[in-house]
Amino acid sequence: MRVEGFEGKPYEASGDHSPPPDYPFTGEDSEITGEGLFVPPLNFAMVDNGVFRSGFPDSTNFSFLQSLGLRSIINLCPETYPEANNEFLKTNAIRLFQFGIDGCKYFLQEPFVNIPEETIREALNVVLDVKNHPVLIHCKRGKHRTGCVVGCLRKLQRWCLSSIFVEYQRFAAAKARVTDQRFIERFDVSNMNDIPITFSCSKR
Amino acid sequence: MRVEGFEGKPYEASGDHSPPPDYPFTGEDSEITGEGLFVPPLNFAMVDNGVFRSGFPDSTNFSFLQSLGLRSIINLCPETYPEANNEFLKTNAIRLFQFGIDGCKYFLQEPFVNIPEETIREALNVVLDVKNHPVLIHCKRGKHRTGCVVGCLRKLQRWCLSSIFVEYQRFAAAKARVTDQRFIERFDVSNMNDIPITFSCSKR
Repeated sequence: MRVEGFEGKPYEASGDHSPPPDYPFTGEDSEITGEGLFVPPLNFAMVDNGVFRSGFPDSTNFSFLQSLGLRSIINLCPETYPEANNEFLKTNAIRLFQFGIDGCKYFLQEPFVNIPEETIREALNVVLDVKNHPVLIHCKRGKHRTGCVVGCLRKLQRWCLSSIFVEYQRFAAAKARVTDQRFIERFDVSNMNDIPITFSCSKR
Repeated sequence: MRVEGFEGKPYEASGDHSPPPDYPFTGEDSEITGEGLFVPPLNFAMVDNGVFRSGFPDSTNFSFLQSLGLRSIINLCPETYPEANNEFLKTNAIRLFQFGIDGCKYFLQEPFVNIPEETIREALNVVLDVKNHPVLIHCKRGKHRTGCVVGCLRKLQRWCLSSIFVEYQRFAAAKARVTDQRFIERFDVSNMNDIPITFSCSKR
């Protein structure tokens, strides 16, 4: 299978955008209309086995989220869930863990920021418990609050800080905050090191 | 566990950067020296169960890669592996699938780009075969060639194009190419729709 030198077959523009005959769900033009396609939430990604991250999910994301077979959702926003989201949880027997962190209060005050360490730690404990998996961690945009929880998880998984920051920045992009990264750097995992991360791809 | 209103405990700057007493491997100052910490390859991420993506791995990444228990690596670069990489494969009984795509030849010629569709398809077939899992897909920077393979996988998983492009752009960042995204859009999955993606979090 090792292909040392490849002679590429040129891509042939067929001009044919009709859906394949066995395309799922509709058998009609789902590829064009988008019908039957999954819409992952904003900033969705897989963090580790049974652990996902994203921005705030809305009803367009529900069929995708359903396909993940979630057992729990960690919502890091303080606001009450919209009725549609509560209904989705109920229908799919998904447990909600809400750790309301005020995005403005804690994440926009520079340079004096007090990111609520204990709340992040509580959220992290929910993530670490495989009984809650598959679990989705989300805030509003999946950048800062979620980025802090995932960054602390990576620290526990013994990722070096520069790699943790690169991952944080990949999601926060232009909105990356040095205060979040400082929080992750200073987050103390010493008393959590005895917790076995059984689900982790990257074994400690 | 639902916390409606949270009173955050202020983060206390202790000024103590000494490693926790039970920090793994060294018991000394591994947190400061970086000893015993994992260094994931550039642009590393989990794509799905048993599927990872990254840029070109080097020896600093080997202990991390070892922790993933990889069975295969898909290398999308045409260059021969450095000796250290070959040694790593041998020591860890990792199978190499090399689909050499010339990054300059195929990915820098705008507007007339012929991305080698058949090669991407062959690489995708390796990804789809769970016997090869856990598998790492990599090119040089984990942006374009890897981004195309992952984008085509997402298409097969029925992600909508806009979400596929957002994911592609998250890794390609300032180097995102419309030609790659056009390639993904035009990639025909109709004759692959009968392949069950058994490993996928997002069930088709």
